Amino acid sequence: MAVDIYSIKAETTQKTPKHILKLSVNDKREFLNSFDRIFSDVDGVVWTVNEYIPQAAEGFKALADAGKKYSFVTNNGVRSESEYAQRFKEIGIEFNANEFVYPAKSVVQYLNSINFKGLIYVMATDNFKKSLRGAGYEYIFGPLKIIKETYSDLANHIFSNEPVRAVILDVDFNMSSLNLIRAHLFLRHPDCILILGASDKLLPFAKGVDIIGPSSFAKIIAESSKKRLITLGKPGKDLAELLVKNFCIKDRKRVLMIGDMLEQDIGFGTQCGFQTLLMLSGGCNLEKMLAETNTVNIPDYYADSMGDFIELLKDLKKAEV
Amino acid sequence: MAVDIYSIKAETTQKTPKHILKLSVNDKREFLNSFDRIFSDVDGVVWTVNEYIPQAAEGFKALADAGKKYSFVTNNGVRSESEYAQRFKEIGIEFNANEFVYPAKSVVQYLNSINFKGLIYVMATDNFKKSLRGAGYEYIFGPLKIIKETYSDLANHIFSNEPVRAVILDVDFNMSSLNLIRAHLFLRHPDCILILGASDKLLPFAKGVDIIGPSSFAKIIAESSKKRLITLGKPGKDLAELLVKNFCIKDRKRVLMIGDMLEQDIGFGTQCGFQTLLMLSGGCNLEKMLAETNTVNIPDYYADSMGDFIELLKDLKKAEV
Repeated sequence: MAVDIYSIKAETTQKTPKHILKLSVNDKREFLNSFDRIFSDVDGVVWTVNEYIPQAAEGFKALADAGKKYSFVTNNGVRSESEYAQRFKEIGIEFNANEFVYPAKSVVQYLNSINFKGLIYVMATDNFKKSLRGAGYEYIFGPLKIIKETYSDLANHIFSNEPVRAVILDVDFNMSSLNLIRAHLFLRHPDCILILGASDKLLPFAKGVDIIGPSSFAKIIAESSKKRLITLGKPGKDLAELLVKNFCIKDRKRVLMIGDMLEQDIGFGTQCGFQTLLMLSGGCNLEKMLAETNTVNIPDYYADSMGDFIELLKDLKKAEV
Repeated sequence: MAVDIYSIKAETTQKTPKHILKLSVNDKREFLNSFDRIFSDVDGVVWTVNEYIPQAAEGFKALADAGKKYSFVTNNGVRSESEYAQRFKEIGIEFNANEFVYPAKSVVQYLNSINFKGLIYVMATDNFKKSLRGAGYEYIFGPLKIIKETYSDLANHIFSNEPVRAVILDVDFNMSSLNLIRAHLFLRHPDCILILGASDKLLPFAKGVDIIGPSSFAKIIAESSKKRLITLGKPGKDLAELLVKNFCIKDRKRVLMIGDMLEQDIGFGTQCGFQTLLMLSGGCNLEKMLAETNTVNIPDYYADSMGDFIELLKDLKKAEV
């Protein structure tokens, strides 16, 4: 039975996130027994930009030893799947490619699920395009050029008779207004759909530095074309449905979503009906978490880093003795 | 005394626009006597894309003969002022460069009015940049190039130590996400202001074809930077204030705003406290006008084209005999 998880009303009483190491022994045990599966973000939980977060691998290993399954769900598809595999291997995290979720893959799964036929106009990286090509989809992109400042040259570069039936947008280092205008024009066709991969309004780029993310650009086209934005990155509704289906989730409450971003990770988890845990090892500090007023984005639990799970499991073991 | 025209509440009773030729003779006389000055849009009133709208020049001449002053206020600064002068001359409309209002000029006037000192980051056409240079302002722009798909190359092209204190955005044929991301980063400086010239969400490009306009792009940066968007094109509040000051408007009700766009022209006029007249010779037809529900965008009057003013003046002359 399909449940519209987005019809779940936000709780009206304010939640107070609990630090997993400040729980009583009984509550720690109860918490650990309350979930079977983990979906975890990568950036901010496993590493930040290029630095490994100490004990992340050990934390996941300890949870696996305690019988928990985990998979990674990231919005960051700029790295290729093999680069991810390599990095996970280096730090000693077991990597199951089949269960690794990122926008390019989710988009392909979505296109397959609707039996999509037709040409795609894509604004994304080469890695993203490779995923589409690998799945047998045909696409066009660009133009990637500087044009003359005349309406006639503009017309030459935005109008096209190509039978585009899907516009797809993800991180694109060279996206231009020409591309967005072209996308808007393709979307005039009633059957042309609009898909967003990475769904960040702002992307954390360096310490304290955010840059404008794909979701901001996609919003322009969604508004101008009045098309529904099918969103296959966190916190997208369509990704939530895909995850629940692909991982055969029966009881959403027995899933724990772990991440470092209030909207993308915690908001996504809450709206999926999962339990949520904010890791303070990435883009959000304690102050910011406590200042959050949107109940959807307030986590059930928080921890300093994955290493806290090692402590929690030790505490429980000690208590058993 | 400064009046906050934006505090004027929208009327709650629905207005019904009146066709100027369907008024009684008395109402025609009253209407004509109710304004001394006209601000008129150009595209859609004088010409559409490249076609002259018949009798536009004669319409303005008839109004001038009846003692009305008129000036043109356009969002379209892609043409240079001298090109405008040439086109107006060709069709026989008297052109007073001092009273011709377009975004690049309004932006310069605004910068002068706040005694702006500092470097500008600009996303606009060469014509626009020429206006800034002519007024003695220094600016940087770009990059205008295709970059490698790596975070390090992205970093090389978005970070800058230039002391930018204003980001200015207008129509820019080659704007890229790199430019928008750079703008967002410059706006992190607390003193850096954000200015929009042409304020169209969508630009009418060809018959039945709109393209995404500068206002949509500016909105992304305003949201990401949380800066106020100083808007010097129609329907911008800052342009309204500049017009009222520069043209020494004492009684706003004795100004008639003429234009072909519901939001940009009529909405702008209403919010300025002017009377408004929609010309059906451009981007809006009768059906669309009647379907408009936002009172601010419903005109007081409408007409098929400027030629209707010739008829109206004839009718009044006939009635005097």
